[in-house]
Amino acid sequence: MSKDKIFIFDTTLRDGEQVPGCKLNQDQKIVIARQLDALGVDVIEAGFPISSPGDFKAVEAIARVVKNATVCGLSRSVEKDIKCAADALRHAKRPRIHTGIGTSDMHIKYKFNSTREKIIERAVAAVKYAKTFVEDVEFYAEDAGRTDNVFLAQICSAVVKAGATVLNIPDTTGYCLPSEYGEKIAFLRDNVVGIDKAILSTHCHNDLGLATANAISGVIHGARQIECTINGIGERAGNTALEEVVMILQHRMGQAYFTDIESKQLNRMSRAVSDMMCMPVQPNKAIVGDNAFAHSSGIHQDGVIKNRENYEIIDPISVGVDHSSIILTARSGRAALAFRAKEIGFNLFKDELDVAYNAFIDLADRKKEVNERDLKKMLSSMFKVHA
Amino acid sequence: MSKDKIFIFDTTLRDGEQVPGCKLNQDQKIVIARQLDALGVDVIEAGFPISSPGDFKAVEAIARVVKNATVCGLSRSVEKDIKCAADALRHAKRPRIHTGIGTSDMHIKYKFNSTREKIIERAVAAVKYAKTFVEDVEFYAEDAGRTDNVFLAQICSAVVKAGATVLNIPDTTGYCLPSEYGEKIAFLRDNVVGIDKAILSTHCHNDLGLATANAISGVIHGARQIECTINGIGERAGNTALEEVVMILQHRMGQAYFTDIESKQLNRMSRAVSDMMCMPVQPNKAIVGDNAFAHSSGIHQDGVIKNRENYEIIDPISVGVDHSSIILTARSGRAALAFRAKEIGFNLFKDELDVAYNAFIDLADRKKEVNERDLKKMLSSMFKVHA
Repeated sequence: MSKDKIFIFDTTLRDGEQVPGCKLNQDQKIVIARQLDALGVDVIEAGFPISSPGDFKAVEAIARVVKNATVCGLSRSVEKDIKCAADALRHAKRPRIHTGIGTSDMHIKYKFNSTREKIIERAVAAVKYAKTFVEDVEFYAEDAGRTDNVFLAQICSAVVKAGATVLNIPDTTGYCLPSEYGEKIAFLRDNVVGIDKAILSTHCHNDLGLATANAISGVIHGARQIECTINGIGERAGNTALEEVVMILQHRMGQAYFTDIESKQLNRMSRAVSDMMCMPVQPNKAIVGDNAFAHSSGIHQDGVIKNRENYEIIDPISVGVDHSSIILTARSGRAALAFRAKEIGFNLFKDELDVAYNAFIDLADRKKEVNERDLKKMLSSMFKVHA
Repeated sequence: MSKDKIFIFDTTLRDGEQVPGCKLNQDQKIVIARQLDALGVDVIEAGFPISSPGDFKAVEAIARVVKNATVCGLSRSVEKDIKCAADALRHAKRPRIHTGIGTSDMHIKYKFNSTREKIIERAVAAVKYAKTFVEDVEFYAEDAGRTDNVFLAQICSAVVKAGATVLNIPDTTGYCLPSEYGEKIAFLRDNVVGIDKAILSTHCHNDLGLATANAISGVIHGARQIECTINGIGERAGNTALEEVVMILQHRMGQAYFTDIESKQLNRMSRAVSDMMCMPVQPNKAIVGDNAFAHSSGIHQDGVIKNRENYEIIDPISVGVDHSSIILTARSGRAALAFRAKEIGFNLFKDELDVAYNAFIDLADRKKEVNERDLKKMLSSMFKVHA
């Protein structure tokens, strides 16, 4: 069976960088862009050139250094935005202009004080104008998550006819359930006129904690590009996390789909973005959190020591983490204590383990974590090393 | 249409507390348990009594102070575990023993070196023994996510016959896609003998970033209890986040389901757990992250100022957050600058706003965030206050 490629569109430097506290200087942006290029992303959304002179210069600089990925600049459906994006991208090997407009009745009424017909006209004009600069034009239907599907198909058909190569269907407010988002993508796949000339893209926000599930649901129903960010950063509760969708596709859907991401670089990439943006990744973050491969309960530790796959579905090495951790706490059992003791030279006999375990639990009830130094001190006071 | 109640089973003090670095002392556990009780959770899993004397005492103390919620203690399918849990729970108004065993072929082979038949025997014996102490016995089928559905229905039927009141179907390794987990729950709903005597419970892990979506998929397909933790803490990448499923049910599925959670306490509850456990919540965490209601791009800020619902699907007040934030960065537009300037007394005319905006963008390109002091300083040097 032939596999479908899923294009990875990274917007860490646009939707991510616009977040409170995440601002990078130009040198930092170039470092991240180079790393994303090496990671294997297909598209780098480098910024929103009209928004500030600093952002314009950064997009221009990124366009010069990126070797493989398409470099994309954001614009509203406004001529000066599009012209500005085109200018910033003029040195890109593979430039893409990303333009669009709000399509939900709420956005049409409260943001634009306009009508559906006029919104289609503006969208078509924007795509046509963008096509005068570049071949690759992506259209976003802002607030597509709350847009009527019939109208969405209508505006998508119009912009495809105008030359759009990618149709971005953003769940801008993080509103959709996975079933709803999937149905929306399926409806567009089945109803947009000329859909064979464009690909459908997901752009999901995480307000309800569903950004990753929605992107995956989109792929299952016909999307072939996922917009995402490293560590899931982005407006409010953030975007789909690149590392999560890539590992789901690789690990659970690999018979039907593939991406070109070098997953072994995910951990390093996550740390680079977190460090440069001073945006912490919580320890319980999927794939890249500090605890993602750490085992602490006795039942789990015992199981992992017997066979890693009892409690781990992904080999940590595949995302660039050296090994899974057996951390000693008051919830650890004898198997974990014996395992860690052996690592530091104490190969305990069964009766010794019983004695050591009692002392260990007494210590662990008083401490958050029994680290290697604590363990060595405790065992040395009780036994001689016998490995 | 009558609505179905979804029971919220909080395991912050068991699956959460066992995590590296999350250990609490007994007084802290009691504080959290009281707050969970006030929040309106239906079940508090207070600990794993056999695991250490400290945990036993904590479960005992929590059982004494909780007024409304069921208090639950974990055990393996081992008599001494079950007896110990029963002892710890003896002062609870509504005690529940949670017992179970691994049911996937991998766990049966590599953890227990056993057979399916023997695992069913052990499970039934454990439930029967637990029933000699308490009426309310929950059975967990560990690694149900990777367990053959036909065998899972078989063991569930056996334990329901033995008296189990709740069937916990854990995706222990965070393996399932939402469609798979939903199909599993639907299969059990349709095939477990005597299912009208027990309720199905979800317990999902977040290794692929899908714990929330899987729990919701479980509810859609027949589960009526969700096991979850505050901030989604728990083994490895954590569990389903309580605040996420509660807000999804309230906000998007409220016509069919309800919970008894007082959602206005969610923000305070999240901070209490994060502070006591020293477990940071990342700014882009759904519902309770610092940025969950913060808007920074110009397009979004302009939209929110026109009408909050353009970019916010949940009113921040409903989860205990005072108001959404308009944060000034280099991605902010004129509308946001005018809005924030007005808040500090500068009601700018259009030509003034143009001048101020140029100065602002210049400043913002150099700073991560333009705070109130920066803004006041900048505007005061240019204009007199005219509100």
